[in-house]
Amino acid sequence: MNFCSNCAAPVTLVIPEGDNRQRFVCSRCDTIHYQNPKMVIGTVPVWEDKILLCKRAIEPRLGFWTLPAGFMENGESTAEAATRETLEEANARVELIDPYTMYTVTYVNQVHLYYRAALLDTQFAPGAESLDVRLFAEREVPWPELAFRTVAITLRHFFADRAEGRFPLHTGALAPVR
Amino acid sequence: MNFCSNCAAPVTLVIPEGDNRQRFVCSRCDTIHYQNPKMVIGTVPVWEDKILLCKRAIEPRLGFWTLPAGFMENGESTAEAATRETLEEANARVELIDPYTMYTVTYVNQVHLYYRAALLDTQFAPGAESLDVRLFAEREVPWPELAFRTVAITLRHFFADRAEGRFPLHTGALAPVR
Repeated sequence: MNFCSNCAAPVTLVIPEGDNRQRFVCSRCDTIHYQNPKMVIGTVPVWEDKILLCKRAIEPRLGFWTLPAGFMENGESTAEAATRETLEEANARVELIDPYTMYTVTYVNQVHLYYRAALLDTQFAPGAESLDVRLFAEREVPWPELAFRTVAITLRHFFADRAEGRFPLHTGALAPVR
Repeated sequence: MNFCSNCAAPVTLVIPEGDNRQRFVCSRCDTIHYQNPKMVIGTVPVWEDKILLCKRAIEPRLGFWTLPAGFMENGESTAEAATRETLEEANARVELIDPYTMYTVTYVNQVHLYYRAALLDTQFAPGAESLDVRLFAEREVPWPELAFRTVAITLRHFFADRAEGRFPLHTGALAPVR
């Protein structure tokens, strides 16, 4: 951030009075420009003993497999974001079951939230941001070709929990891999 | 948003190619300035049969009672945000139990997440943004003087669940009151 989005004057990085963190503050109109984590929301779409994965058509991680997910938008709920992203990435219609994993990816300022979801039919197809969309049984999951750490974590939890017959909410935080 | 925070040129509200929503886009450097919901994170601090509330010293809702909570910051996890806000607003040390309520407040683009938490001691005191901090038994809760809808919803769930002896995650979305 270089300039104030309100008045176009340069911003400086300072700790505002009464605050304890550096913020971008306008040198002219004094607007404080807060920056906060974003939510990335998606689903684990389930059909019989299989789950739906999408092959990414865009960077980052083009060509790798992911659960359908994307940035939550203003004006929608977390549940609406999950359903919308599943439709956009995989043209897949789902009924949400419950929030299942919520991991903060601290080093990119994101919170990844995945809902378990029941696929309503198998009329899915790649959306604009996917090269391919496919159902995978547990033994078929392309583990080395998964796009993101939270996708792998969510799938590992899912298969382990399915074996136990219970799906508690899993939460945590990811630090950078050293 | 009036100007590009990257180059200071005016922004216009347009639907970028390949997108389906209006975004602020720079007329000179073409940067797309996405705006996304923010997370407000806090706790339900429990001590014996009582919960801790803070009387707000700042707007909005100055003078009303709230659970300790605030905006999640870049670089921290959801759990760290919950613990930090409880310390900042009430000088209260807690051990988190689990995520308890998560409601989208759609009309202000916020997701409110409250953890159940065990107060570790009663050496709490008002932080800079609180006028008072107090423990309340269920019959003492100042319902008409609660600051936010998600605080009232979370407390109603808490007392009902405590009577049942189970505390499942509650989620939902709030539309404006008509």
